[in-house]
Amino acid sequence: MEKPILVFQTDFTYKEGAISSMYGVVKSVDRSLEIMDGTHEIPHFDTWSASYRLYQYMRFWPKGTIFVSVVDPGVGTARKACVAKTLDGYYIVTPDNGSLTHIKAFTGIDEIREIDESINRLPITTGTSIFHGRDLFGYCAARLASGIITFEEVGPEYPVKEIIVHDIPEPYLRENFAEGIIEICDPNFGNVWSNIPVDNFLGNGFQYGDFLKVVIRYQGQRIYEGKMPFAKSFGYVKKGDAVAYTNELMKVAVAISMGNFREVHGVDFGHEWTIEFVKEV
Amino acid sequence: MEKPILVFQTDFTYKEGAISSMYGVVKSVDRSLEIMDGTHEIPHFDTWSASYRLYQYMRFWPKGTIFVSVVDPGVGTARKACVAKTLDGYYIVTPDNGSLTHIKAFTGIDEIREIDESINRLPITTGTSIFHGRDLFGYCAARLASGIITFEEVGPEYPVKEIIVHDIPEPYLRENFAEGIIEICDPNFGNVWSNIPVDNFLGNGFQYGDFLKVVIRYQGQRIYEGKMPFAKSFGYVKKGDAVAYTNELMKVAVAISMGNFREVHGVDFGHEWTIEFVKEV
Amino acid sequence: MEKPILVFQTDFTYKEGAISSMYGVVKSVDRSLEIMDGTHEIPHFDTWSASYRLYQYMRFWPKGTIFVSVVDPGVGTARKACVAKTLDGYYIVTPDNGSLTHIKAFTGIDEIREIDESINRLPITTGTSIFHGRDLFGYCAARLASGIITFEEVGPEYPVKEIIVHDIPEPYLRENFAEGIIEICDPNFGNVWSNIPVDNFLGNGFQYGDFLKVVIRYQGQRIYEGKMPFAKSFGYVKKGDAVAYTNELMKVAVAISMGNFREVHGVDFGHEWTIEFVKEV
Repeated sequence: MEKPILVFQTDFTYKEGAISSMYGVVKSVDRSLEIMDGTHEIPHFDTWSASYRLYQYMRFWPKGTIFVSVVDPGVGTARKACVAKTLDGYYIVTPDNGSLTHIKAFTGIDEIREIDESINRLPITTGTSIFHGRDLFGYCAARLASGIITFEEVGPEYPVKEIIVHDIPEPYLRENFAEGIIEICDPNFGNVWSNIPVDNFLGNGFQYGDFLKVVIRYQGQRIYEGKMPFAKSFGYVKKGDAVAYTNELMKVAVAISMGNFREVHGVDFGHEWTIEFVKEV
Repeated sequence: MEKPILVFQTDFTYKEGAISSMYGVVKSVDRSLEIMDGTHEIPHFDTWSASYRLYQYMRFWPKGTIFVSVVDPGVGTARKACVAKTLDGYYIVTPDNGSLTHIKAFTGIDEIREIDESINRLPITTGTSIFHGRDLFGYCAARLASGIITFEEVGPEYPVKEIIVHDIPEPYLRENFAEGIIEICDPNFGNVWSNIPVDNFLGNGFQYGDFLKVVIRYQGQRIYEGKMPFAKSFGYVKKGDAVAYTNELMKVAVAISMGNFREVHGVDFGHEWTIEFVKEV
Repeated sequence: MEKPILVFQTDFTYKEGAISSMYGVVKSVDRSLEIMDGTHEIPHFDTWSASYRLYQYMRFWPKGTIFVSVVDPGVGTARKACVAKTLDGYYIVTPDNGSLTHIKAFTGIDEIREIDESINRLPITTGTSIFHGRDLFGYCAARLASGIITFEEVGPEYPVKEIIVHDIPEPYLRENFAEGIIEICDPNFGNVWSNIPVDNFLGNGFQYGDFLKVVIRYQGQRIYEGKMPFAKSFGYVKKGDAVAYTNELMKVAVAISMGNFREVHGVDFGHEWTIEFVKEV
């Protein structure tokens, strides 16, 4: 059987040599393993974003792909290091610190095991406790991908319900009204993504071409209020105008055409940021 | 026959999960395809830079390489999605929005086809129209590279003369005088590249070791005027001094040795930025 | 025999097309070569950091790996272009400009050869002298990795003692006291790394759990003074508190837990930056 691809995401950046060390360890375990960059620019210590990015791209990779996610503010402390097997047949090697939130909620986790450091830790670097990306997660993932260990040999299983998760509120919809949270912001183009599935949105009276009132609140306080069309893409409004659209994960989002909604309006993401859509009738 | 390499360039950055989704789609089409990063830091929506970057590096790759360029402000609108075959044997998968300007002008395009979305679009994401890098360009390129479709099966051919291009003025040279546009600035070191081929420059009386007067104008207005030697490399002048030199594409350029000419002098690029060289005799 | 991996590090960034050109040349020499990114974000012209990054990650890669390091302020001038063979069986292709400092001091160089440009330079770009990453280092490294040339065919050997190096002062330790230099700062998390090996530190009376006085000086002048525990990881102190710890290369370092020590205290690295640890007893 072909060995699975390893896809890495971290908050390490490529500014220094940490990623190279980590990838060198993988190649030293098994030269034939294929390594791909997910992203190494997760915001520092942000386990919500780590969780969200896995949810954003995991499904597009071949079944069996092993994801290594290292956003690990608790490195070297008592937090668990684990490997999760998802219901749809992927593996995630990660600290158990909230980084599995979205995959657990929306994809489902079949089984989870704590990494046994006595077997699956790089032996030559035991004097340091602060680089588990290289010494534990990368090394263990490479051994799993290579077939040196089976999933069972990662370490002892523990209950899926014990996985550490962030709170994710459900969106609320009724005829011509939808409210959700800002699930994430696009750190590149500055688009703002709600957690409202477009199928529910369309099922509650909204249609492309509608004009919408949009309100964004932080801890209940109004940060933004504006009107904009609901369109299939950015180019249906003039440059600089706001637009509601369906994002790449088929949820409702807002943007400024060829601009940066997030920066212009000072918006951020997480469960304390809500976004409300009302159809103008 | 060996499958061609896929080289990607976008304005997506690696800050979030878009590239990973796009590459996952490619690997799901055919696990054996080889993916390389061109650059994912094209300035937002800048089809001129997208065009220039292809021109900068395409020729150095093996013949047959497939380039996927996704700088796509008009995603989801009526702009064409296409695959171009160049006269020297490469393929470019891109929106037809100016991104083919330099390759069309300096390399030549043999044939161009519009992507047939009914066949060459990822079927599972039809509810969204804003991520053609993943759903259309990446997917179609992977099918082409894998041999699932031939170039003819991309979709219908259309005339090369209909390709959307930016205006590229020609440089003007006479004895001891040369004027061109600023073709691009190096966003890293801040060097400023003209469109004047060094062969023409040397053929009009200029020689390494000459002292030059250099004038840069924006919309005809003087932004910079200075004197500097024409040297083979940066190290022939003192740190902090300006120098004219021959850039990596064998055109005349200006720099500050171990400094940033572009930032220091507030210079940018495009057909409205001209640069003039006069030999001091 | 399997062809070695090529690991590249430069100060080029991925913002434009230079890396793609360089990698294209490698793939044109031999399509089967495997290319990995080390880092392309070495600070501009900083040969000390280039040297340090090789030292940070080289050992984790499979023996035989060829590292290509291009931080080259003297490109096109008389500085030597070389390939070094290390005592532990790696190759480094680099300008001889200080980039071999740490590997020469801490790993050892077995043999060094100057690249013969008449053979190992890309023939098609001889009109330009400013992109040796593409035209000389990348091309020569690809030929070496591919087996087209042997190490002896790189060019003439020269004495290892002639290699250009930066000054690296030795750390000084006595009972409950240690002084070294700031070897590097982590440009991502902002941690500050000394050159004091933790084994020497522990051998001079320091233990995890100790409370330390830390003084940082630049050119002898006090920049920072503070007290902090010596702990196994960041999570043993509160968010925002300073901590001394053992870094990934088993040397003593200081950090702010979930903060940026370097920025908060205006600290930098190099032989003029010293750091002193005194055990509070």
